[in-house]
Amino acid sequence: MADKIHKPRPISGFPEWLPEIRAVEMQWLDKIRAVFESYGYGSIETPSVEEIDVLLAKGETDKEIYTINRLQAEESDDSEARLALHFDLTVPFARYTAQHFNNLTFPFKRYQVQKSWRGERPQKGRFREFTQCDIDVINVDNLPLHFDAELPAVMFEAYQALDIPPVELRLSNRKIVQGYLQGLGVEDITTVTRTLDKLDKIRADGVINALSELGLDETLAKKCLAIAEIKTDDDSFADKLSSLGVSSPLMEEGIAELKFVMQNLAHLPKGSIKADLGIIRGFDYYTGTILEAYLKDMPKIGAIGSGGRYDDLAGSFINQKLPGIGVSLGLTRLFAVLLEAGHITPAAKAPTQVLVILPDESRRAEAAATARTLRTRGYNVELFHSDAKVKKQLSYAEKKGIPFVWFPPFKDGQAHEVKDMTQGEQLKADPENW
Amino acid sequence: MADKIHKPRPISGFPEWLPEIRAVEMQWLDKIRAVFESYGYGSIETPSVEEIDVLLAKGETDKEIYTINRLQAEESDDSEARLALHFDLTVPFARYTAQHFNNLTFPFKRYQVQKSWRGERPQKGRFREFTQCDIDVINVDNLPLHFDAELPAVMFEAYQALDIPPVELRLSNRKIVQGYLQGLGVEDITTVTRTLDKLDKIRADGVINALSELGLDETLAKKCLAIAEIKTDDDSFADKLSSLGVSSPLMEEGIAELKFVMQNLAHLPKGSIKADLGIIRGFDYYTGTILEAYLKDMPKIGAIGSGGRYDDLAGSFINQKLPGIGVSLGLTRLFAVLLEAGHITPAAKAPTQVLVILPDESRRAEAAATARTLRTRGYNVELFHSDAKVKKQLSYAEKKGIPFVWFPPFKDGQAHEVKDMTQGEQLKADPENW
Repeated sequence: MADKIHKPRPISGFPEWLPEIRAVEMQWLDKIRAVFESYGYGSIETPSVEEIDVLLAKGETDKEIYTINRLQAEESDDSEARLALHFDLTVPFARYTAQHFNNLTFPFKRYQVQKSWRGERPQKGRFREFTQCDIDVINVDNLPLHFDAELPAVMFEAYQALDIPPVELRLSNRKIVQGYLQGLGVEDITTVTRTLDKLDKIRADGVINALSELGLDETLAKKCLAIAEIKTDDDSFADKLSSLGVSSPLMEEGIAELKFVMQNLAHLPKGSIKADLGIIRGFDYYTGTILEAYLKDMPKIGAIGSGGRYDDLAGSFINQKLPGIGVSLGLTRLFAVLLEAGHITPAAKAPTQVLVILPDESRRAEAAATARTLRTRGYNVELFHSDAKVKKQLSYAEKKGIPFVWFPPFKDGQAHEVKDMTQGEQLKADPENW
Repeated sequence: MADKIHKPRPISGFPEWLPEIRAVEMQWLDKIRAVFESYGYGSIETPSVEEIDVLLAKGETDKEIYTINRLQAEESDDSEARLALHFDLTVPFARYTAQHFNNLTFPFKRYQVQKSWRGERPQKGRFREFTQCDIDVINVDNLPLHFDAELPAVMFEAYQALDIPPVELRLSNRKIVQGYLQGLGVEDITTVTRTLDKLDKIRADGVINALSELGLDETLAKKCLAIAEIKTDDDSFADKLSSLGVSSPLMEEGIAELKFVMQNLAHLPKGSIKADLGIIRGFDYYTGTILEAYLKDMPKIGAIGSGGRYDDLAGSFINQKLPGIGVSLGLTRLFAVLLEAGHITPAAKAPTQVLVILPDESRRAEAAATARTLRTRGYNVELFHSDAKVKKQLSYAEKKGIPFVWFPPFKDGQAHEVKDMTQGEQLKADPENW
């Protein structure tokens, strides 16, 4: 008596991959981790959930949050803290650093590769669950500018390790745009910077209109727009900026910082870094260096990574000054885009390198022992699962793309043989010595 | 003007580790993955959420489920499917296999290392978020018994790779206990097996009492209990069973299967496998082989892993016969228990192998180039973050447990030197050739 069949449907925004695609994602994750560790960043994980109050510690977020609730909870059971899935890894990291402050060595450099969730409306290209690969560093009292250059370099190297189309980092500094707007006498700096952030989407005209609606006269609006249009390959952004005739101490501080960062990234391939004063970043917690990463030839897909310095975030959770900086690779987004564009070559369907033939049921113990020997020698080995005809066993190896098939003795006294499935060649071999 | 400080608290049931402990967990994950892949199992991931209907496809579960809800959702917005965090990886895997049926090669062998969630009441030792390491195989129509022996072997090898106290696998087969109870004429087999499952907790007397309350007379209750007390190191369980004088075709089938499994695990170290007919497993979807793993010297902490065969689970989602078997290592539980028992030796606080000294700001470019050279040669390398006194830089290396400190030239013409922090020795060295 068959139960009713519940046909499963994909859930919009929650991607999953076939094994041969997931294998490529695993290779990416391994490469990213190796780059992060090569700079001395160590792994941590934080729970998938935080208290809602922690997630909103720096004010309301524009990210939609998923709360979690026990299905069988009693209605009156509200004694526990309200929990929600984290929407990024920066806030949880800041919370972790504050919470474990006494047990950490500073500067505390960590990487974190985890899922995050955003309760977006279902929409093509928008993920509600996605993997992020973050590195951050937090120090006590003062965080040397060294890290403002190191983190973009690590990020760039991680992208380079992935065999993807060329990447460009666009760098700016919050102090420059804030200092500039202060120098111009703009009052509502937050709203104006948010408007400038839309330049790519609504173009220059759109920005001017939006600024007019905020009550800025046309001359002032154009002056605001002018800074967002400055993009240079080196630290000549400073000259362009000074030609706008506006200055403030905060702006000069930002210029010096961005110059340091650009100079210390000069070893990267030509054309892979840009000073781009139009980079704003949505999160309110950024206070200095900010950056976004783009695929040079596919800028339209938007940023594939981003980051920045946040001098006051971790301090929301403890009575300490804990400046930090971090960058985040949006792995799922990048992977999905390149997969759809045909840039991802599927890997083998299984990690198996050798299939050991099962001659017949009476020789199972010996065939199993052969498989074990090959495994201890470092190979990934399957023993075929039943004593089917050899032809059927070979066809399984072909279907799974297994490169070698091993023939243990079919009768006493016979030698082992191994068949190279690509070359077709079959040779005598010793499992202890292959 | 400081914001209000929100002091973070640990959230009960959601563990997180310090970096030096997380590093050990990472080593565990790497070793487990290597064992899984060595048997030809490939990675997949499924989303953290499923439709609630999918999670409950095999009837109500006794596992508490966390539903997720958008914080900012409109009240009327109930057009979308109701989603919940998965409570294990078996149901999602069965759903995945049915959903991607046409794009998979069978038998489909996969491993899956992911978080799962259970909305348990807060309680010491109970995790609400935990990492599970699962391998499963699903085939079309018929799944050879081969896998009933392979999966426990893989599981055992994974535990062996972890350098933990000795592990014991306890194996049984649902068909034996069900066939036996049928042979005895027991009517409500599900309730009786659930009662037998409590033997470890409520002891023989408790089981007899509970069975009496179900209306079984004392003789019958004792007969029921008798099977659950059979534990043998080899396939002699069959003789003990036949001495109870009850039989049925289903029971004989189960005996033959368990004998096959025991015989094919005979290569494992003596004393590491047991036939234990008291093993029942809570999930309703198991239909044949069932098993639990225990730490031999710490059985009181309960099972550290478990698994079994489910011939009808994936078939709930597609009109196909898709028998499967899987095992699951409860990583978080095992790790937490051994950590508390002092069995986990913390790793280094950072993966850094070499700290490159920054002589002074004027030599930053050369010091950075030295660090890059060492990185391309495969080392994990930090460049010190400011031109502090050498003593301070050395003290940072000591605090982080970095084994080597590299001195690039402090002036032109000087040689590089490297200091072995354990031995104290400092020697000339070439970064291109170290």
